Parts: sequence; structure tokens; C-alpha cells
Amino acid sequence: MSAYRIALDVMGGDFAPEATLAGALEALQAWPDLHLTLVGPEDLLRKKCESKEWTSELLARTTRVHAPSVVEFQDPPTIILKEKKDSSIRVAAQLVREGVCDGLVSLGHTGAAMVASTLVIGKLDGIDRPGLASPMPSPKATPTLLIEVGASIDSRPEHLACFGLMGSIYAEQVFGISQPSVAVMSIGEEENKGTEVTLKAAELLRQSSLNFRGNAEGRDLWNGKFDVIVCDGYVGNALLKSAEGTAKLLKKGIKEALTIHWLARLAALMIRKPLQTFFKKLDYKEFGGLPLLGIKGVSIIGHGSSDARAVKNAIRAAMTNLKHELPRRIAEGLTKMGSA
Amino acid sequence: MSAYRIALDVMGGDFAPEATLAGALEALQAWPDLHLTLVGPEDLLRKKCESKEWTSELLARTTRVHAPSVVEFQDPPTIILKEKKDSSIRVAAQLVREGVCDGLVSLGHTGAAMVASTLVIGKLDGIDRPGLASPMPSPKATPTLLIEVGASIDSRPEHLACFGLMGSIYAEQVFGISQPSVAVMSIGEEENKGTEVTLKAAELLRQSSLNFRGNAEGRDLWNGKFDVIVCDGYVGNALLKSAEGTAKLLKKGIKEALTIHWLARLAALMIRKPLQTFFKKLDYKEFGGLPLLGIKGVSIIGHGSSDARAVKNAIRAAMTNLKHELPRRIAEGLTKMGSA
Repeated sequence: MSAYRIALDVMGGDFAPEATLAGALEALQAWPDLHLTLVGPEDLLRKKCESKEWTSELLARTTRVHAPSVVEFQDPPTIILKEKKDSSIRVAAQLVREGVCDGLVSLGHTGAAMVASTLVIGKLDGIDRPGLASPMPSPKATPTLLIEVGASIDSRPEHLACFGLMGSIYAEQVFGISQPSVAVMSIGEEENKGTEVTLKAAELLRQSSLNFRGNAEGRDLWNGKFDVIVCDGYVGNALLKSAEGTAKLLKKGIKEALTIHWLARLAALMIRKPLQTFFKKLDYKEFGGLPLLGIKGVSIIGHGSSDARAVKNAIRAAMTNLKHELPRRIAEGLTKMGSA
Repeated sequence: MSAYRIALDVMGGDFAPEATLAGALEALQAWPDLHLTLVGPEDLLRKKCESKEWTSELLARTTRVHAPSVVEFQDPPTIILKEKKDSSIRVAAQLVREGVCDGLVSLGHTGAAMVASTLVIGKLDGIDRPGLASPMPSPKATPTLLIEVGASIDSRPEHLACFGLMGSIYAEQVFGISQPSVAVMSIGEEENKGTEVTLKAAELLRQSSLNFRGNAEGRDLWNGKFDVIVCDGYVGNALLKSAEGTAKLLKKGIKEALTIHWLARLAALMIRKPLQTFFKKLDYKEFGGLPLLGIKGVSIIGHGSSDARAVKNAIRAAMTNLKHELPRRIAEGLTKMGSA
């Protein structure tokens, strides 16, 4: 039995189709309950799946669906609605819409993935703005979920409140936290601090049944103080990309510090492993991709520079979201909250 | 001759008055052209300045001004306007307003420092919102200036454009960059990406005489791509505090990685120095405090947890701002830009 039916946009990302297909292969090898639908140009898919690693057992859990065109980096996201209806991302989303697959994994063109998820798969009833959520590394056993990181800008207070609900359900299901603590990103911890929008969002969240704990500050993204931190996509996107930049600069700085002296170079050899373990915790490729919450299905949106490992982990993320039936639970949460 | 006349709020910060007075002493010892006015309770100041480190030469460059009350952590910022007119921060600001001093250094209560700078010292003609600027470490020789990081929220496009002007003048004067490149923090590098406010701000900046280069992304805070990055104070504050959190988490992670094995512990000893050099680059105490730009005088606002070194560096920052006559240059820039 194949429990998890996932459509993979084989043509997405900077290293497609090699990285996507290698990741697909690894995922199929790792998880016997995965059924993958590979979406891309027919000839290419056939040829690539002829290699001997694609055993008959793996091929039995693989479907190939033809999509002749590809969304290019410079294409506007909405191109998939008209000119490129036959693109791999659009066709993959269509499979989820039609119930042939339950989840979509795409990499690279975030805008097109957003349009495919929101307009092709469709939003849940009662959802105005779906939210892209990002688990942030924390000193606790579970990550802090930052929602939203780029799908929704100029959010209104009710959008932020809805991100709080979806994030809370995600943290409860996926991280296994009962009554996750929720906070809104603000400029100070005092209740009266915030922008017009965050102050009103805090009011809405305070009245909700969520475990709302008030204002978060930037540092709380990293100290495990809250389970879910809510913000507008513009802010979340800047925070996420800035953190990637900080980590990169730090990694480079440490590397340089470790090579200026032969003793330091020796030391570097000794500590390579523990440092790698640590930096792995900060590596987005470990998460593979970010879930877009609030749509009628599962959609995992990965980084353009995804390698095979990142693709495999994005598929795992889709499986995790499906296992916890996130779309259904979010729909139920909305009904309870009275927004549906 | 004492070229730099600076008022120091001796009672500000978590470690006041010990840290502020120790920092004052170090600054006076380091810079013979500094004249410091220490503001705080008379008895305390007299007693502290009796120790033998305060030589007659240093005391000759020190004035003590009595201010009996202190703004407490929980006080609202505006308390200095009525109830605590005799607080050290208010009295220190008053000295700048009256031209007795040219610059103000305060630590701890950022809100009160903002009110003191904006309402007591006063805003430059043509400035609606002063901006707190933060130099960010960069792989280049000069930092990237992030403006604004907490003085102004819910900024309108014209505020962001003004931050661009002030940041550009600061980078030119203090970092010695001719025609600094300016960008606005957005959600993607493409010109059409951004919030309502950032898109309009970009339009204004594009029409200005500044070297405007379009949109920045979060990662550009760390890669030296731009000299000045403009954003709303809510966003900048979250970015700054998040970066502090990332650095802290990374430092902790590296420390742990370096202690799990005796060889790693040995390695840690070898590389302590280069790592320290690197982390120093990321340490806000090196900058001491952040300049609030757009007021009729120099105001440096320091961290509440400032130690003596941070206080000394905040005083140095005030001297640097004075040396480059930032208030006058910003006023001139505004006139040129036609906003005055």
C-alpha cells in the first residue's frame, strides 16, 4: 500500500532535473510507503528512469506525468495560469487539485509555487492568505516556528491572527507540543509596544483560544522562548534571509580563524565533525522545504539551490504534513475559531 | 583646548554608575581633546571622582552637573518631560540643547533617550522622524549601515527616503565612502517586489540625487552589497535583535562543539584568539552605541548592558559624529534635497 502520494515538480530548482531525480530516488529507497509522481517532460523522465538504480520495486511506486514546459527564473509567477498551463509545476499542482496526489513538492520558483498552491490546489474555506512557515533552530528540543516568511505581505491583523492559528496547529501536530505558546513579532516585550498592525493582531490573538503570550522580539527567534512567532511575510522573509547571511558570514569567519596558523589548522581538523553537526542544525537543506499552510492539500516549497538531500528532505516534509493531516486539522481549527 | 564637549548620563544602563564612570575615565585617558560633563546625583559624582585615578589633569577636563533623579527601567519614556525633569538623561540633553555640550551619550532606557534627543535637543528643520542607525559587520573594509532600528515605526515612504539621505551622509562622512550605495529592504531584488511602503520609498529614492540601487534582501545585511540599507524601525529592530540572537546561539554551539572531546578542547585553546578577534567584529560593544540621526546635536544611544568598554566606545562614537559635523551636514543635505 502506498500511503503517501506526492507529486514532485522534477524541473524545479537550479540543479534540476539531476538533483530532483536523485532526491526522488533516495526518498523512494528510504520510505516504502511513498508513492511519487514525477512531473516533467516525458522523454527526459523515461530516459532518466532507465538507469539500473531505478529498480522495478521503485518504479512500481513511481508514476510519470508529462509536462512539456518549464517555468523559468525570470517568468512572472502568474505565467502558469495562462501561457504555461502545461508547465511541470502547474501540472503537479493540478494532480493534487484532482485528488490524484495528496501533496506537492516544488523547488526554485517560489512565486510560481505559491500561485500553483493557492490558485490551482486552492485555499481552504475561511483562509484569505496562506502562510509559509519556517522552523528555526532553537536550543530546545523542538524548533520555533516562524510564520509567515514570504507568501503574504502587507498583512492585516486578522491575517496575522490566522497565521497564529495555523502555526499553533502545525507545532502541535508536527513538533508534538501541546498548547504551543504563540507570540507576535514586535519591537519590545511590553504589551503597548508594536506597530498598528501588530498591536491589533495581538488583541485578536489574546481573545482567541490559542496559548497567546504577547510580544516576541527578534532575539526570541533563537532562544526557544516561544513555540510559534507570527509576523508579516515581508518581515519574516527579511529575518530568514538575514539569518542565512549571518550564518554564512560566521561560518566564513570561523573558517578563516581556523586557518591562520598551522596549530589552528590542526585544530580545525579535530573539530570538523562537531562543527559540522552544529552547522547542520542551521542548514535549511535539513528541513528541505517550507510548508505553505492554509491550502486544500500539502505543499512544500523548497530552495532554488536544493541538492538531492534537500529534495529528499522536502519529500519527507510533505509526508510528515500528510501524516498529521494538516489541511484537515487547519480547516477544523478555523471552524472552531469561527472564521470559516 | 577641549574640542569635544560631551554630556554623559552617568545613571543610565544596568551597570551604572560603575560602568559609566569607568568608561568615562578610560575615554578621558585615551583622548586628550575630550571634555566630559558627567550628569548624575552630586554626592555620588563627587565621591566617585575622589579616587586617585581621577588625576587633576582628567578632572580639569571634567564637569559635574547635578541631576537628582533617575529614569527607571519601568518608567514610560515621556516621564522626563514632566515628573522627572531633573533626571540625569533629561539634564544631560538640556546641556546639549543649551549649547553647553555638543553631544549626548546615554545608555539603558532607549525610549527616554529618544524623547530626550527628539524633544529636548530637538529635531533638525525638515526632519519629521529621526533615525537610529546601526553599522553591521560586513566582509568589506567598511560596515553596512542599517537605518532605522527602533526610533520610528509605521514609517511612511518619505520617512524611509529621509533615512536614506541621512544614512548616505553618515556613510560618506564616517566610513569615508564616496557616493555610498543605498538600497531599501524588500522581499526580493526585483524592482516590482515590496510592500506598499517600500515600493513608494524606492520611487522617492530613485528620483533623489542619492546613489540608489534598488531593493535589498535580508542577506544583503551581511555581504557588503550595499553601503546603506533603509527600512522601518520595526523591521530593523527585529533584524538587529535577531542577529544578536543568531550570534549568541552560534557562539554557544561552537563552544559546545569545542568541548565534547579532549582533542577538541585542546584545539579550542589554540584557536581562542582568532575566534575572539572574529566575534569582536560582531560585538555591539565595539560600536558602543548607535547614533540617532536627524537631531540638532549628536546623540549616541547605548545598550542597557553596556560595560566600561562599551561606554568608552559610545563616547568615541559621539566624538566621531562631532568630528564629521553630522548635524550640520544632514541639515545641508536636507536643504539640497529640498525637504527643508
